[in-house]
Amino acid sequence: MNTLTSPKHLAGQVVDAIRTVAGDGPVALHEPRFAGNEWAYLKECLDSTFVSSVGHYVDRFETELAAYTGARHAVAVVNGTAALHVALRLAGIRPDDEVLIPTLTFVATANAVAYCGATPHFVDSAENTLGMDPGELREYLRRKTDFHNEQCVNRETGRVIRALVPMHTFGHPADIEGLLAVAHDFKLALVEDAAESLGSTYHGQHTGTFGLLGTLSFNGNKTITTGGGGAILTNDAELARHARHLTTTAKVPHRWEYMHDEVGYNYRLPNINAALGCAQLEQLPGYLLAKRRLFEHYRLAFEEVPLATIFSEPAGCQSNYWLQTLVLDESAPDQRDAVLSATNENGLMTRPVWTLMHKLPPYRECPRMQLAAAESLERRLINLPSSTHLAIEGSE
Amino acid sequence: MNTLTSPKHLAGQVVDAIRTVAGDGPVALHEPRFAGNEWAYLKECLDSTFVSSVGHYVDRFETELAAYTGARHAVAVVNGTAALHVALRLAGIRPDDEVLIPTLTFVATANAVAYCGATPHFVDSAENTLGMDPGELREYLRRKTDFHNEQCVNRETGRVIRALVPMHTFGHPADIEGLLAVAHDFKLALVEDAAESLGSTYHGQHTGTFGLLGTLSFNGNKTITTGGGGAILTNDAELARHARHLTTTAKVPHRWEYMHDEVGYNYRLPNINAALGCAQLEQLPGYLLAKRRLFEHYRLAFEEVPLATIFSEPAGCQSNYWLQTLVLDESAPDQRDAVLSATNENGLMTRPVWTLMHKLPPYRECPRMQLAAAESLERRLINLPSSTHLAIEGSE
Repeated sequence: MNTLTSPKHLAGQVVDAIRTVAGDGPVALHEPRFAGNEWAYLKECLDSTFVSSVGHYVDRFETELAAYTGARHAVAVVNGTAALHVALRLAGIRPDDEVLIPTLTFVATANAVAYCGATPHFVDSAENTLGMDPGELREYLRRKTDFHNEQCVNRETGRVIRALVPMHTFGHPADIEGLLAVAHDFKLALVEDAAESLGSTYHGQHTGTFGLLGTLSFNGNKTITTGGGGAILTNDAELARHARHLTTTAKVPHRWEYMHDEVGYNYRLPNINAALGCAQLEQLPGYLLAKRRLFEHYRLAFEEVPLATIFSEPAGCQSNYWLQTLVLDESAPDQRDAVLSATNENGLMTRPVWTLMHKLPPYRECPRMQLAAAESLERRLINLPSSTHLAIEGSE
Repeated sequence: MNTLTSPKHLAGQVVDAIRTVAGDGPVALHEPRFAGNEWAYLKECLDSTFVSSVGHYVDRFETELAAYTGARHAVAVVNGTAALHVALRLAGIRPDDEVLIPTLTFVATANAVAYCGATPHFVDSAENTLGMDPGELREYLRRKTDFHNEQCVNRETGRVIRALVPMHTFGHPADIEGLLAVAHDFKLALVEDAAESLGSTYHGQHTGTFGLLGTLSFNGNKTITTGGGGAILTNDAELARHARHLTTTAKVPHRWEYMHDEVGYNYRLPNINAALGCAQLEQLPGYLLAKRRLFEHYRLAFEEVPLATIFSEPAGCQSNYWLQTLVLDESAPDQRDAVLSATNENGLMTRPVWTLMHKLPPYRECPRMQLAAAESLERRLINLPSSTHLAIEGSE
């Protein structure tokens, strides 16, 4: 190993490259920015006293989310996990079903499956999208499943594989056309986990609007935030009605009676959080420009680092570049922790990708295909400081 | 039926009595009041950019809730339903267990049991507390259960009855000593649903602090509100640690790694909602005085109405008087809907008690004791306008 490719040298190069983009001083991984009407809307919300589950900001936020994404309906909920839980229930997931999800994802994707009493079944990733690999998945399903009563059955476990849940990693769209074809051919419901991809499009269409249902997240570290929040997207009026019903304790409308006709959830987004969301959504176009500009800055800065490249949006896609992502060369996977240490010790907050789902204690025994690409990516991906303010107009 | 006791007459008397207390114009059932530091704390929260699950208002809210209630630990979560779900999981509720809950409660109590895969088992109410009747419950358990391996087993279903979940209805403490004795004798975990009773005490001790765990709610209609929010109370440090772990996706602390060691939840209260909670909690003593004063006003106003009385706190208890409650005389149960119609048509928002849990479609088949007292109360309880501002100092 010569000095140019030693861990120490690479780590130092990464620190220097980030510094040229993010400047001096401590830099967070992702901070929200409140430079619009947040204050005005929160005040209006307090003054109205409608801070909770009834209030016009919730309706407005839903209408504006639908308009922005092009989904016919949006239902606002307390967070992305709740959105995914309800979306899976609406997709017909039942106890003892299996649900195909990427092993490379945040734990919420797997947990939402578990909340339905079902079992996650892990899928490998494509290096060019960081999302599920439809080609490998198709081959795997062809070898390992049969059709019984028009349902895709895992030959080994005997359980029905009911749905496919791609996730758009760090905002980069998965190969959704390829995955839709797999879902069609194997009779799987497709639910898109678009928690990270608000503002990302695939061939001009917004992520989260391709499947039966899609879900968004507005957690504090996301492109826009409501404190905590999420939404369910769908083009199906009946699914939207049912989503709204399930997320408001399944209460049947009545002048005064409290009748609940199924087991529902207290998942409705409070109005005060929706007020923040309305203000944030107004600024989303500016945030997206800033994030794209930040990507360009990083891309240039890392041209000089031979063993690392900045991940670019897949062909035909517009990514929101939520979290900027460094990909270490295949020859340098052992250097990840040295880079993480050096950057964090220098006040530059970075992080690896999530521990793969099939390695987590609650999910170790779940079924899975061969996961070589995800295993390789896990050793090589590092998220860099990605706050909008690092590249927004006027604050550069 | 003479005119004095006719539905029309009673309804008119109720409208008049409410008007003498609540004044002219439309009156809501329960509106929050933001007259303290809400605005200042929200602004500070926005300016810090820590609006989500990390931030000092969450820690402060928890510390202040613990200090106020006298519980050793408080863990803030997104709502009361989430608090109850996690409390039940921590109490060891497993799929196929049964959990004793009142049939007279909000649906969240039953739903939280269902989320654990367990079955609610319905208990009758005591007329003097509106909570579970410990005497009737003890008799019922003595007749219907056996002990197997130190566990209380429902002889009819063969399932373990694992826990007892009293709820403090409208803020009025249940007979918690009697219920603790039943829990002890039948080896049941006691989890208190104190969603409605922040500020209510039983023999000087705060509700929610008697059992293994207790839960609070800060929904928009509660005594204090965080938009949406709740908390878990416990005196057990290990349960508190586990509650905090489960409500933050069961992530194991690490500089950068994402390791989750069990199926967790995204239930942490956002900082922006906690900021509201801190400001509201400062005003709680004033709210409680106002609610007690409002009770006195109603009590006097209804002295002139022969067929209806205002419910008073049980002996030995201090109620928060969250929702003021009219109890129709046993001779006038058919008049409930006439009273509800007349009041609501006159712009005075009232409501009946919840439809009893054993009548809801998802819970109709669940086991239950004889529920005569709750059935009678369901026909006779009406909540009256209860907003703090109806009797707060300076706004009368």
